[in-house]
Amino acid sequence: MNPIVVAIHGGAGTISRASMTPDREAAYRAVLAASLAAGHAVLAADGGAVDAVLAAVRVMEDSPLFNAGRGSVFTAEGRNEMDAAIMDGRTRAAGAVAGVTRVKNPILAAHAVMRRSAHVLLAGDGAEHFARAQGIELVDPEYFRTDERWAQLERARAADRVALDHDGAAEAEGGERKFGTVGAVALDRAGNLAAGTSTGGMTNKRWGRVGDSPLIGAGTYADNETAAVSATGAGEFFIRAVAAYDVAARMRFAGATLAGAAEATLRESVEPLGGRGGLIALDRHGNVALPFDTEGMYRGVVRDDGVPRIDIYRPESPEN
Amino acid sequence: MNPIVVAIHGGAGTISRASMTPDREAAYRAVLAASLAAGHAVLAADGGAVDAVLAAVRVMEDSPLFNAGRGSVFTAEGRNEMDAAIMDGRTRAAGAVAGVTRVKNPILAAHAVMRRSAHVLLAGDGAEHFARAQGIELVDPEYFRTDERWAQLERARAADRVALDHDGAAEAEGGERKFGTVGAVALDRAGNLAAGTSTGGMTNKRWGRVGDSPLIGAGTYADNETAAVSATGAGEFFIRAVAAYDVAARMRFAGATLAGAAEATLRESVEPLGGRGGLIALDRHGNVALPFDTEGMYRGVVRDDGVPRIDIYRPESPEN
Repeated sequence: MNPIVVAIHGGAGTISRASMTPDREAAYRAVLAASLAAGHAVLAADGGAVDAVLAAVRVMEDSPLFNAGRGSVFTAEGRNEMDAAIMDGRTRAAGAVAGVTRVKNPILAAHAVMRRSAHVLLAGDGAEHFARAQGIELVDPEYFRTDERWAQLERARAADRVALDHDGAAEAEGGERKFGTVGAVALDRAGNLAAGTSTGGMTNKRWGRVGDSPLIGAGTYADNETAAVSATGAGEFFIRAVAAYDVAARMRFAGATLAGAAEATLRESVEPLGGRGGLIALDRHGNVALPFDTEGMYRGVVRDDGVPRIDIYRPESPEN
Repeated sequence: MNPIVVAIHGGAGTISRASMTPDREAAYRAVLAASLAAGHAVLAADGGAVDAVLAAVRVMEDSPLFNAGRGSVFTAEGRNEMDAAIMDGRTRAAGAVAGVTRVKNPILAAHAVMRRSAHVLLAGDGAEHFARAQGIELVDPEYFRTDERWAQLERARAADRVALDHDGAAEAEGGERKFGTVGAVALDRAGNLAAGTSTGGMTNKRWGRVGDSPLIGAGTYADNETAAVSATGAGEFFIRAVAAYDVAARMRFAGATLAGAAEATLRESVEPLGGRGGLIALDRHGNVALPFDTEGMYRGVVRDDGVPRIDIYRPESPEN
C-alpha cells in the first residue's frame, strides 16, 4: 500500500524568534496542525490527493493569520485581489484564478476551473462570474478585511512602496518580513500527487499584478512521474525561473532526486536571479523536501500515523 | 562575429492550400516578410535581440490578418482582450500583460512591464493603467474591430461555443482552423537571445480566460544558455506542459539539441495531453527549429544575408 503524505507551507520570509510571541507562535502552529489534519483525514479515508490539497489549503485560507483568503493583504486601492491554482498530478489537469475579490476560498474556484471549464487560468471579473455560476461561495469584500492587514497597507502607503506579499514595509519597523502565500502537496493511497497554492498577493500592489502562485509551472505544478510542488517567495523571480516545473524538470530530464532537485531549483535557478523564498515538494514515493533560503518558513508534514510535524524557523527540518 | 537570426510565427492550425486563395496567401507572405525585415533591420544595425523581437511582433500586431493587436478576435462580450509577453535571454528579465483592451501594441506594454516595473505579469484594467502611465499608445477599441473577426464571433455565437484562437467555429464552415497568436525569437550580434508572443485570444471566449502566450515558461521563454521560444496552439495544453520552458529544460538538463528538444516538447509533453500547435525555437549558435503538428503554421526565418524564407504548409521546412 502506498504511503499517504500531506505537506504544507504558510509562507517564507524573515520570521525570527525575536519577533514572535509565544501566543502568536502557538496560534500559527494550531492552524498549521488543523490544515494537516484536514488533509490527512481525506487521505486516511482513501480520498484523493486533489481533495486533500483542497482541504488543507482551505483551513489556511479561512485563517486570518495567513496571506490567503480571509487574511489577504490589501492592494493600493484598498481591495483584496487573490490568486490560486491547483494541479492534478495524475492527469496534469490544472485550474487557476487570478485577481478575484469576493471568492471566499480561491482554491475552490481554481478547482472549479480545472474540473468544470475547458480553461486553465481565468482572471478578474470573468473569473468571479465563472465562480458564481459554479456555485462557489462569494462573500462581501468586508470579510477579508482584518485590522492587521489594513494597518500594513497604511504603513506601506506611508512608505509609498509595494510590499511583497504580506509584509515588507511592516518589517522595516521590526515586524516580520514574509512572503505570504499558502500551499499544500499531497500523495494519496492510489499513488497520485496534487499541488495547490493560494495567496492574497502583495500589500499596496498596483496595476493588477499577478504573482507566481496561480501560474502553472511557476508557483504550482504536479505530475505523478516527478513531483508535486508549491512555492512561496518573491513571485517575480519564481516566474522567471519557472520554479515549480524546474523541480520536476530536474527530476525528469537530469534524474535528480526530489531533495536534490528542490534544493537546486532554489540555489541554481531562483537565487541567481536575486530571488528568495521556499517551496514544498513531494514525490510518489512519499519523499518530502521543504527547502527555503529565508530566515523561516511556516511548514508542516503529516504521514500515515497522523502525527503532525510543524516547523517555523531554521535549521531546516531533518526531512528537508 | 555571431550570426544574427530572426524567426517568427503567425499561428498554427488547419491551413490547407484548398482554403487559401493566391491573393490571400500573398497577403500573408507580405506581412511575414515585412516582420522579418523589421527584425533583421534592428539586428543588422547592431541592435539588440529584444528590440528585434519588438519590431518583428509589431508588424504582425499592426496587420489585420493575424490574431494579435489589430486583427484580434472578439470575446463573447464583443470585446478584444489581448495578451503579450517578452523575455530577455541575457538577464531572464520578463514582462507580460493579460486582458488589455485598448493597447495598440500589447508587446510594447509587455516590454514596459519588463523594463519599468518590478513585476512580470500585469492583468486587466491595472495593466492598461500602467501602460497609459508609461506613455504606451492606447487606441479606441473600435481600432481592433475588423469585419472578418466580427463575422467569426457571430458564427461562434450561433454555434454557441468557444473557438480556440482565431478560428474553430468558422472552419466548421470550410474556413481554416487556426491557433492565432504571433511570436518572434531573435539572436543578436552580441550573442543574446530574446522571445516575444502576442495574441488576441479565442473567439467568443468568456470569463477572462488567459492562455499560454503571456505566461513565462508556457508560451514564451528565453535564456541565452538554452533557447528562445514562442509557442502557438491550444493554449491550455501548452500551459499544462509548461511548453516553452520544457524546450529549454530538455537542453539544460538532458543535453538535448535545439531541434531534438523542440520536437520532443511537442511529441512527448504537449501531445500526450491532447494538445496541438507549434513553436519556434532559436539557440545562441543560430540553430532554428519550427516544429508543428497541425496542418500548417505561418512561419519565417531571416539570417545575416537578409533573405526571408517563409513557409505556411507542410512539409516542414528543411531547417526544421
